[in-house]
Amino acid sequence: LLNENIDEFRRLFLDLHPYDQAKFYVKQEQDIRLRMYHYLSPKEMAAIFEQLKIEEQKYKIYLKEMDPTFAAQMLSYMYTDDAVDILNELDKSDVANYLTIMGDEAAKEIKDLLHYKEYTAGSIMTTEYIALHANETVQSAMQILKREALHAETIYYLYVIDEDKRLVGVLSLRDLLVSDDDTMICDIMNERVVFALVDEDQEEVARKMSDYDLLAIPVVDSAKHLLGIITVDDIVDVIAEEASDDYSKLAGVTDMDSGDKNPFSAAKKRLPWLVILLFLGMMTASLIGRFEQTLEKVSILAVFIPLIAGMSGNTGTQALAVAVRSLATGDFEQEGKWKLIVREAGTGLITGTTCGVLITLIVYLWKHDIFLGLLVGFSLLATLTVATVAGALVPLIMYRLKVDPAVASGPFITTINDIISIFIYFGLATIFMNYLL
Amino acid sequence: LLNENIDEFRRLFLDLHPYDQAKFYVKQEQDIRLRMYHYLSPKEMAAIFEQLKIEEQKYKIYLKEMDPTFAAQMLSYMYTDDAVDILNELDKSDVANYLTIMGDEAAKEIKDLLHYKEYTAGSIMTTEYIALHANETVQSAMQILKREALHAETIYYLYVIDEDKRLVGVLSLRDLLVSDDDTMICDIMNERVVFALVDEDQEEVARKMSDYDLLAIPVVDSAKHLLGIITVDDIVDVIAEEASDDYSKLAGVTDMDSGDKNPFSAAKKRLPWLVILLFLGMMTASLIGRFEQTLEKVSILAVFIPLIAGMSGNTGTQALAVAVRSLATGDFEQEGKWKLIVREAGTGLITGTTCGVLITLIVYLWKHDIFLGLLVGFSLLATLTVATVAGALVPLIMYRLKVDPAVASGPFITTINDIISIFIYFGLATIFMNYLL
Repeated sequence: LLNENIDEFRRLFLDLHPYDQAKFYVKQEQDIRLRMYHYLSPKEMAAIFEQLKIEEQKYKIYLKEMDPTFAAQMLSYMYTDDAVDILNELDKSDVANYLTIMGDEAAKEIKDLLHYKEYTAGSIMTTEYIALHANETVQSAMQILKREALHAETIYYLYVIDEDKRLVGVLSLRDLLVSDDDTMICDIMNERVVFALVDEDQEEVARKMSDYDLLAIPVVDSAKHLLGIITVDDIVDVIAEEASDDYSKLAGVTDMDSGDKNPFSAAKKRLPWLVILLFLGMMTASLIGRFEQTLEKVSILAVFIPLIAGMSGNTGTQALAVAVRSLATGDFEQEGKWKLIVREAGTGLITGTTCGVLITLIVYLWKHDIFLGLLVGFSLLATLTVATVAGALVPLIMYRLKVDPAVASGPFITTINDIISIFIYFGLATIFMNYLL
Repeated sequence: LLNENIDEFRRLFLDLHPYDQAKFYVKQEQDIRLRMYHYLSPKEMAAIFEQLKIEEQKYKIYLKEMDPTFAAQMLSYMYTDDAVDILNELDKSDVANYLTIMGDEAAKEIKDLLHYKEYTAGSIMTTEYIALHANETVQSAMQILKREALHAETIYYLYVIDEDKRLVGVLSLRDLLVSDDDTMICDIMNERVVFALVDEDQEEVARKMSDYDLLAIPVVDSAKHLLGIITVDDIVDVIAEEASDDYSKLAGVTDMDSGDKNPFSAAKKRLPWLVILLFLGMMTASLIGRFEQTLEKVSILAVFIPLIAGMSGNTGTQALAVAVRSLATGDFEQEGKWKLIVREAGTGLITGTTCGVLITLIVYLWKHDIFLGLLVGFSLLATLTVATVAGALVPLIMYRLKVDPAVASGPFITTINDIISIFIYFGLATIFMNYLL
């Protein structure tokens, strides 16, 4: 494949889409990668690195194997947002080193972006946008466009700024194309610009872009100075990331990475949760231990423990999922917390009554003991209602306290609900013991 | 607000972004909506309907309140993909009716699209694209572009076709802008086009577009005839939808809609799962019932039921989530099923051993009974290993059998694992009974 013939390799390789080039690159062993750095220019490697989707620590390895000058040049050829993403994974001293080697101009742009906090609009924006002034004509705008087209990350939205670099309008390339040459920009621009604030959460920005079907959104500071733009391809990544984040939490897997190729690293990610849950599970065990006398007298009670605990876990997970989604999509803000809680309580009562009546009948038919049936039925009713409310309440409280809602993950809620349900079930059983004997 | 003054309303309202217009529209009562149909033209309503994100059955209500001719005109003004989405929600007779009222041309385009199966590329594509021929010059292409710019859904990718409408290349508007007027299209077009087949799954298409960072993708039939395009805004919706789909399955909520405003409709969506799980839970109960003798002799066994069942449920959910994700992201195809299963078995053994040793120690310290500790520890080890494999295996089997993997949702796996773990725990307890007495 990658033999001594440089020209042949370059011809075949550079004909590929950068995404396919990147796929090829990550599959190679180090010796082949080293050869690639010699065969390709920093600019060509930059196109590959813009497409890389790899584990964060790998960037460090790849950059270390390159000649520092080559690496610095490559970084300066990349769109600034992508270069910043990579630099964020490196050691501070290496970053400083690369920035020194690069040209001053590129280094400055990157330095500015490195300051923004992770997960904000600032951290994912790029500075390669096209800005026009309001008093230009369509013709002169087209000239600017042709000149800058190759460097800008998108040329399909053009932003209009005043002398102070304040954002005053936006127009699409489509608007420009269908207008006459001597039309003024200010006459065709749209002054109602949808923008993102530089410290806005990236999830918020993603929602805005998807609501308004934007291909790019301008990022401004509080005085409306244009700082950069975010393009839709970055947003697609954000949406996928955030969704998979909620999903991991529900499953109780920290930092889910299906790319774990060995069981040790997979176990390492899952064990923290499992050990915490083991200790929570011990609470359930010691709770039942307190009811050992009840159990010894009526050992049949044990038969329904997994059913009641399991059902409360299931319904809690359902309520949790709905609450987390409505926090994520912003529906919650519209509705308010009380409405959500009242609705969940209602839902819990309805599902609890249905399941409670059902199980009372089943137990009666199975064991011919109406009191046992009623005990299991009422426990299920109470348990499902409480568990549904708990499933909705915990993420809301986390959200209020601005605690990381990862604490409210699925298994956690399930285990909490186990404890609640055991308490209700054995509590009722102990109180009505006489009827069961 | 919306008083008798039409002009004032139109001035203020039409100044809004269509997304905000749509938000306003859905908040109104019927009488206001009826007035809006009089104040606005079918074309203006079309812009609103393209932005609507509402429950499917509402489209029917809204269209029914319009004059049929108005509704038909509105549909013909919409991008065909959006019109088709709405028509798919209506009764067959109404669809036929609207298509008859519409012009022949619009009706034909829509009819063609209505044939495609849901969730395929065909069902979300639109026919408003710009196609060029290879032997045109840049200048004539720009003429075509300016003429068609207002009707096309995107003008930023231009597709090049031969006499038979077969796709032969693609170029971006950027390529066109930076080229000289008399360059031939065939000299600047890219012949390596990333395309979607018309019957390809929309999730697959979404992945392709996000991998290659495309703003639009051409849709072709098996002979490479260009049929339509899919734009990135539709794909953003698909990604969000698919992710929330996986999420709902994990939570055991059918068709999660956080917009449910009353507990009855929420309960209706959750009850089917809960009732199925209730019956599965009865299997656990009857399984324990079979071990009643064991339980009567050693009632302390009941204390650890929720812990063992709960832990097996948790680990199963983790494995399930990882497997479902790796099916969704396509990582799985690269890796193969055996590797995944072997890795999960390994992960289960490691987590099982860790938790097993821990619980043996805890139980020994608590109850000073080493046999009880060993029983619980070994049960946990066996249970976690089996549960982890089961969590990964079930979605893979569903996938193989092409059964809807919704059956493999989180609560289902959890309940299956409850049964397995109870069986292992009580099985071991019964065998080693003598040591426990």
